[in-house]
Amino acid sequence: MTKPSYGLTKGAQLIPNGMLDDNYPRNMWWCAAHRDEVTEKPLARWLLEKPVVLYRLADGTPVALDNRCPHRWAPLSEGRVVNDQIVCPYHGMEFGADGVCTRVPTQGAVPPSARVQSYPLRESGLFVWIWMGDPEQIDHDPVDMAYTTDPDWSVVNGLMEVEANWVLIRENVLDLTHIAFLHANTFKQGDWDNPPEVTMEGETIVYRQDFPPSPLSPLFCAGFGFEDGKVVKREQEGRMPSLAISFSDWNVHDIDAAPGERVDYLVRGCHIVTPAQRGKTHYFFAAAFDVPGVTDEVLEKTKANIVGAFNEDKDLLQKIQAQVSEDPRGLDFPEINLGADGAGVRVRQVLKRKLEAERNG
Amino acid sequence: MTKPSYGLTKGAQLIPNGMLDDNYPRNMWWCAAHRDEVTEKPLARWLLEKPVVLYRLADGTPVALDNRCPHRWAPLSEGRVVNDQIVCPYHGMEFGADGVCTRVPTQGAVPPSARVQSYPLRESGLFVWIWMGDPEQIDHDPVDMAYTTDPDWSVVNGLMEVEANWVLIRENVLDLTHIAFLHANTFKQGDWDNPPEVTMEGETIVYRQDFPPSPLSPLFCAGFGFEDGKVVKREQEGRMPSLAISFSDWNVHDIDAAPGERVDYLVRGCHIVTPAQRGKTHYFFAAAFDVPGVTDEVLEKTKANIVGAFNEDKDLLQKIQAQVSEDPRGLDFPEINLGADGAGVRVRQVLKRKLEAERNG
Amino acid sequence: MTKPSYGLTKGAQLIPNGMLDDNYPRNMWWCAAHRDEVTEKPLARWLLEKPVVLYRLADGTPVALDNRCPHRWAPLSEGRVVNDQIVCPYHGMEFGADGVCTRVPTQGAVPPSARVQSYPLRESGLFVWIWMGDPEQIDHDPVDMAYTTDPDWSVVNGLMEVEANWVLIRENVLDLTHIAFLHANTFKQGDWDNPPEVTMEGETIVYRQDFPPSPLSPLFCAGFGFEDGKVVKREQEGRMPSLAISFSDWNVHDIDAAPGERVDYLVRGCHIVTPAQRGKTHYFFAAAFDVPGVTDEVLEKTKANIVGAFNEDKDLLQKIQAQVSEDPRGLDFPEINLGADGAGVRVRQVLKRKLEAERNG
Repeated sequence: MTKPSYGLTKGAQLIPNGMLDDNYPRNMWWCAAHRDEVTEKPLARWLLEKPVVLYRLADGTPVALDNRCPHRWAPLSEGRVVNDQIVCPYHGMEFGADGVCTRVPTQGAVPPSARVQSYPLRESGLFVWIWMGDPEQIDHDPVDMAYTTDPDWSVVNGLMEVEANWVLIRENVLDLTHIAFLHANTFKQGDWDNPPEVTMEGETIVYRQDFPPSPLSPLFCAGFGFEDGKVVKREQEGRMPSLAISFSDWNVHDIDAAPGERVDYLVRGCHIVTPAQRGKTHYFFAAAFDVPGVTDEVLEKTKANIVGAFNEDKDLLQKIQAQVSEDPRGLDFPEINLGADGAGVRVRQVLKRKLEAERNG
Repeated sequence: MTKPSYGLTKGAQLIPNGMLDDNYPRNMWWCAAHRDEVTEKPLARWLLEKPVVLYRLADGTPVALDNRCPHRWAPLSEGRVVNDQIVCPYHGMEFGADGVCTRVPTQGAVPPSARVQSYPLRESGLFVWIWMGDPEQIDHDPVDMAYTTDPDWSVVNGLMEVEANWVLIRENVLDLTHIAFLHANTFKQGDWDNPPEVTMEGETIVYRQDFPPSPLSPLFCAGFGFEDGKVVKREQEGRMPSLAISFSDWNVHDIDAAPGERVDYLVRGCHIVTPAQRGKTHYFFAAAFDVPGVTDEVLEKTKANIVGAFNEDKDLLQKIQAQVSEDPRGLDFPEINLGADGAGVRVRQVLKRKLEAERNG
Repeated sequence: MTKPSYGLTKGAQLIPNGMLDDNYPRNMWWCAAHRDEVTEKPLARWLLEKPVVLYRLADGTPVALDNRCPHRWAPLSEGRVVNDQIVCPYHGMEFGADGVCTRVPTQGAVPPSARVQSYPLRESGLFVWIWMGDPEQIDHDPVDMAYTTDPDWSVVNGLMEVEANWVLIRENVLDLTHIAFLHANTFKQGDWDNPPEVTMEGETIVYRQDFPPSPLSPLFCAGFGFEDGKVVKREQEGRMPSLAISFSDWNVHDIDAAPGERVDYLVRGCHIVTPAQRGKTHYFFAAAFDVPGVTDEVLEKTKANIVGAFNEDKDLLQKIQAQVSEDPRGLDFPEINLGADGAGVRVRQVLKRKLEAERNG
């Protein structure tokens, strides 16, 4: 039986990324699911190396329980929800939303210890957030995602299962200089010649970079109603308010706008990662245009293009994870940092502090 | 190299089931194969985490040897049996039924240490039984299975490979209260509202339970020549004479029988488990109607229905095994017992005593 | 993280074969690839449990580098070679043939520690050889393979990926007495009734054996222009000049040659093994007839037949490797040697000395 290590493996890395370990802080909100994935039909999902079942009560309240019946360990997700009780598929034991057993079909009394852990959930925008750590330590809300369901925005979103540690994705989305290489044929935004400026605003990592006029990535033109090849000025701004989520704002300035016409546009990428099992991550993404009423046809095309580009990341990160896992040297291999790693290095600093705080606290 | 642990992992369980370990007593008869699987053509089979080859001599005697040639470890099962000698596929060394090498093609003398272990076998009814422990300690015969080849009975039988520890199957078949839930759409015998009475008769675990008139499971109606929905009284009686095998007797009483017509019927389920590899089990089953001459058509249909129901068990037990294996908490998770676990708990008690006796003795 | 053990597991073996371990000497030439596999398009290959990328410069020089970018560990093999620099697919860092980074696109200065290991390569005949150990200790050339590209010879060659430790293949090809059994239906050369004479010529293991007239294996008749069933005298001579490679010479004497016609022929088998990952081996083979101008049609048919026979070895060795890996007894199982193991036992002696020398030196 493997115990969670709650730590980072030492290697040749200055601050290890922990990619082969359990490197997941517990006392924070992680994304459990898209809101519409959680229904009256139970959903089984590994979250932070625990099997969890997610479902919704008749009044719409979402519920998360350990997905192991405390009797003979059947996955509750194989059962059904009846009268707001989840019924174990094996012997029919029933559990309420608090995880307490309410009925054993073959006997009158319910053993008092018959209960499973229930996890706090909160919904914001398109997403359901879960707190897997000590519920006493909940001291803030999940990041506000209301814009993702705001009719003034047009949104595409999705979920990719990636066989790589979450930090690899986190670093990937916070260093966009890779777009010029890995995504040369998809994003086609090759003007990342310098690293962005990176600062901390409290605990939030922030990067900013201005780009002179150049053709906007074809991934985003249709969403704004631009023709392909539209030349714009851009300010790229990224924010990571939590290890679980970061935003990537493409602030677009139409340099050819006629007087009185709209000049400034924004497409906000959002990158949400949730550790699943060792070396496996749920990656929820959304791209939101601050333009209402984009047609389904345009959104579907945009989503297909974005997924195509993100699959380039997925393929490479999975190759990295697999190769490092199979290489007997593991993390004991040189790892240098570049100027473009300003945000990524801060991710590791934040992570290291958080893991140490949980270990000591 | 993993050593057999010959024990039970400690966890949150009162008496661990050992589902992630080698929890197999050696000094007992386990089922190696159906009788008709053992022929002059060698059969490779993992039994109690050892690779074994099974075959039959010209006079019909079944033989079991370690399936590793003592020269360069080729599986003997890839060779042929010639003149009652099994011939290694690699360099043609030959071995007798006692495992002693009788010929080395490229030299005159046979090295005296050229031998593999031979395991005692006994046949009873449809089954071949193997003793993997100390042969000096054989002090009883395998359970008598003569009824399975008795022409007064009509039998269906089969073998399922289940990726779950054998104790999970053992507990499953000794607690039929799960039929009302897991098999609601197959057995359709939903009247298990109370646990049965469980007693020990010597080392044999016994349960008994009477049911008032209700429709008999459609799985068994055709075998008795009953129309579907036939209302009967039932006495359910189970017996586990050995960890390797248990019986499940459905004693059926025809409450509508005309005077002088047959009133009492029996269908005897038999559940035979043999550990294969870690977390993998050979599950031999048979259902025998005490009615002669049931047609092949009825038997085939009955078998298909039974396999359909048993696949519901297999699917769920495999999910349990896989999830517990992948969950870092492993066995360190609450496990409560219910009133219906009377037989199952006794299985663990018998197992624990047997493993401790072997460890100490 | 698994550390290379650089050793041999102890078990019941007199001299362990190390088949479950890292049993690879480093200070020697191993075969990295067929020459024509190494082109300007990078090739990813595991060699001695390291991920290596192989490619060729514009002037034809072959290059081997660690296939892990020292920045964020992307496999360089996913990138391209531009102006003799290999470009990382992730952030575009460029590396020269010596493994030193020459360009970081997003910054002016290159960190001095930005480099990966470069491995010495040498080409001989059809093959490219790599030195994975201490380059200071290179004191000899790889075995001369010039005959494989000599127009006076006609050659078939190939690469098989075998999921078995390299020693199993090495012993297989140095003890041809298995041909009478494992290859009874392919080689059809059943006259290995005695072991060959085995000697050491310096560090080279040599075996020799004369055979009286008998039909030559159908695998080799066509290559010499013989009809199938051609009766010849044979001298079989094998040589292993290095653990990485051995030769198997079939010296064929035409006893029916008309006066003045050619009497002596040779088909030289060559067996090259390179450890890939744990329990996995690259197996390069060639069969060369000392006859010029054999047609492509005959060579293709000959290759298909040889591959058919070698697949019999591959299948059996993989079964051995898998079974020993899964057997909890592992190497702790009897292993006897026969008279025919003269060459194989010497392989283990040579290997043991070499591993001990590297461990101590």
